[in-house]
Amino acid sequence: MTLTKDFDYATLGFKELIAERDGGILVVTINRAKERNSFTRLFAEEFVRVFELADQDDRVHVVIFTADPTAPAYCSGAGLSGSWNGLFTEEELKEGGDHSHRDTGGFVTFAVLNCRKITIAAVNGHAAGVGLTGLQLPFDFRFIWGGAKLTFPFVRRGIVPEAISSDLLPKLVGHANARAVLLSGLTYTPTHPLLSQLYPPLTPDYPTILPERQDVLPAALAFARNLAANTSQISVAYTKSLLLHPGTTVEESHLNESHALQKVVMNGTDPTEGVKSFMQKREPAFKDRLGTVKGGWSPWWRPLEVRLRRSKL
Amino acid sequence: MTLTKDFDYATLGFKELIAERDGGILVVTINRAKERNSFTRLFAEEFVRVFELADQDDRVHVVIFTADPTAPAYCSGAGLSGSWNGLFTEEELKEGGDHSHRDTGGFVTFAVLNCRKITIAAVNGHAAGVGLTGLQLPFDFRFIWGGAKLTFPFVRRGIVPEAISSDLLPKLVGHANARAVLLSGLTYTPTHPLLSQLYPPLTPDYPTILPERQDVLPAALAFARNLAANTSQISVAYTKSLLLHPGTTVEESHLNESHALQKVVMNGTDPTEGVKSFMQKREPAFKDRLGTVKGGWSPWWRPLEVRLRRSKL
Amino acid sequence: MTLTKDFDYATLGFKELIAERDGGILVVTINRAKERNSFTRLFAEEFVRVFELADQDDRVHVVIFTADPTAPAYCSGAGLSGSWNGLFTEEELKEGGDHSHRDTGGFVTFAVLNCRKITIAAVNGHAAGVGLTGLQLPFDFRFIWGGAKLTFPFVRRGIVPEAISSDLLPKLVGHANARAVLLSGLTYTPTHPLLSQLYPPLTPDYPTILPERQDVLPAALAFARNLAANTSQISVAYTKSLLLHPGTTVEESHLNESHALQKVVMNGTDPTEGVKSFMQKREPAFKDRLGTVKGGWSPWWRPLEVRLRRSKL
Repeated sequence: MTLTKDFDYATLGFKELIAERDGGILVVTINRAKERNSFTRLFAEEFVRVFELADQDDRVHVVIFTADPTAPAYCSGAGLSGSWNGLFTEEELKEGGDHSHRDTGGFVTFAVLNCRKITIAAVNGHAAGVGLTGLQLPFDFRFIWGGAKLTFPFVRRGIVPEAISSDLLPKLVGHANARAVLLSGLTYTPTHPLLSQLYPPLTPDYPTILPERQDVLPAALAFARNLAANTSQISVAYTKSLLLHPGTTVEESHLNESHALQKVVMNGTDPTEGVKSFMQKREPAFKDRLGTVKGGWSPWWRPLEVRLRRSKL
Repeated sequence: MTLTKDFDYATLGFKELIAERDGGILVVTINRAKERNSFTRLFAEEFVRVFELADQDDRVHVVIFTADPTAPAYCSGAGLSGSWNGLFTEEELKEGGDHSHRDTGGFVTFAVLNCRKITIAAVNGHAAGVGLTGLQLPFDFRFIWGGAKLTFPFVRRGIVPEAISSDLLPKLVGHANARAVLLSGLTYTPTHPLLSQLYPPLTPDYPTILPERQDVLPAALAFARNLAANTSQISVAYTKSLLLHPGTTVEESHLNESHALQKVVMNGTDPTEGVKSFMQKREPAFKDRLGTVKGGWSPWWRPLEVRLRRSKL
Repeated sequence: MTLTKDFDYATLGFKELIAERDGGILVVTINRAKERNSFTRLFAEEFVRVFELADQDDRVHVVIFTADPTAPAYCSGAGLSGSWNGLFTEEELKEGGDHSHRDTGGFVTFAVLNCRKITIAAVNGHAAGVGLTGLQLPFDFRFIWGGAKLTFPFVRRGIVPEAISSDLLPKLVGHANARAVLLSGLTYTPTHPLLSQLYPPLTPDYPTILPERQDVLPAALAFARNLAANTSQISVAYTKSLLLHPGTTVEESHLNESHALQKVVMNGTDPTEGVKSFMQKREPAFKDRLGTVKGGWSPWWRPLEVRLRRSKL
């Protein structure tokens, strides 16, 4: 499928998700209320697909992921029927050994991390397991219902952290807090000191912890509209990449920043419009787009391929 | 010495420490109240020994390290008699040069980090130097007396941070706080914003900052009993290892998590019991043990050998 | 120029900065109030020069960087005249390509990071862009006016984070907060939860957030005098280096700490004076200096050279 200029997300024919674009904002909603919004392989596949499209679609500035606020949960974790075998594909089970599995939650996390647009999770219900890992941690911003019950239950279920949470959580809340929540497996609310760094306040205009479930998506949308109107798509893409792929030394980070600055200033019109609108005290009208800007997109890191390579032909 | 099935920690013949096991909980207490619980080479050797045993002993789920609450301090730092030469072994002094020393505090920190069981420091008194570095930072959880005076005094004594604190502290409390406490050498209490991230609250049932010194160990024990009863030994070991040995990229972390998940689900019974007990709304009865689980234990990192190799035969 | 024993900073002939030494404390003040203390290439050059001198000057224990409290801002960011081209040198423009630029803010950050003396930013006014990145983040301590408006405006100007802020900010305030401020481009005050970790309180005697602009420098000076009188120059240099250059594993960090401890104890007199003064309950009289201590200074890392190498001769 080609991403045409007037591509309509309704044509994707998704079963587990609903994707709707309104101007620069794409809202993706979980469509599994009857199953407590539990996580399945098809859910993951549709999720990856829509975030890949959002990354490529020049019309999209912000992606919001949310759920039906009347569903039993934002996401209740992996959909299990008494066993964890459903986590493994037939191919993985056939391959066997200790290294043939690829965690599905990880694919979800990669899809969000690799999306160069602003990503917002609008968490309007309880969240457990992957609902708190892959469906929250990799996002740029999180808006949440104050009454949400949050749990990383892995050690109390006999399994292990997934969706790259063992790596992302310490970076987001510090190692002391990450150890405490992952090794206790207890349940918290968004204002608890162990997790509150996940939901930092922005400004009085944009509350991030909301008293009612139905307030969460509107709050996220109001903030998304501000960002879509006032931030440069190219600046956002480079800023996200600088944060996600810092150098191994400060000198390398300096070289990356210098390169990014040169790319945006030499090839685009947004930096000029940014200064001009600031001096004229008006909203900027940024026109550069990732798909069309001169000089293209230059990552400075080597993407690692994690897909399983079959040992037999 | 072999770790027999009915091994008794009382037979270790320790001088500086007392080790007592009760069910899945091993409590290790400093036995140097008369010397202000100061830190010596023998203390370090016994400490390393008991944490190595706890790591290997399938009966142990949680290790608590604490002191006599009537002692002058939890640990007052290195035992000095007017000089720092006691920090060096005869071999190190003979070897000379700039690279023959190995910090004893570092051995203590390694012993805690490499222990695959849950570790809790029950800090029921003042703590300085190694009493705040090696005897607190590497632990998974810290319970503490609210009146404890805490100090990293290195820059005010003409020496440098030890016990790997220059690496662990920024990860636990952030670089801004770590710089402030290590470069000022001032004294703080546990609720001070610079250090409070070391003592995050858990839940109302499990307070971590206690008003009286004698309350600290009982609070740690209550939490330890919850964890010993409700968490899988294998899950804890893998979760700790994922946190301690993340990949250098998110892709590597994904591969590590995928591998760990495959190991626990394919070889053990705990994941099945975890789901079953959750669905039946009862406590889990986890049976997998590190020493007996099918498939054994597979670290994914290369342990570095730091012992001094003598240049002369 | 040689740094003679009685070198006077007034002889530097600076245009954009004023440098004055009083005992162990060097105060550097921005001298561009008429231009809103905006950042220029000459400013950067003088800044780098004075921090290099402070690093080498055995008389200096603490460097404070500040501004005139009656100026419109502490630093209002890059000095722009409607375009970003001023950020590039003629050489860089001639060289072209994607990798010929070196961000000037990065040089400022390196100068502070590489200074082995204690560094304090006394932020007595508003700060935007490099006034919040290079002129604050690399410092060991920050004192600030409570009313200061702080903004990382990059995504709203069409450019990208600079002065190594994309690397330093997540380490200082955590990744969640860093993403929120860098991707929103909104304006905050020092007590806002997103940035408050940059300005942690020290002790009641040393407030770091001051109600009036003219209180900021005196507060920084009072703290600087305490550190200059009570900390060892060598200990500070090694502690800073251990924090800035940790190992890639905890084992490497252990080796670095062990090496640093051996260097200071075997070659200097400060460790002995540190213990003695502590036992005698008096202020220490540390005498070791970086330029004269036996055994010299031994970094354990490989400094990376980031200067542009011209492709043509």
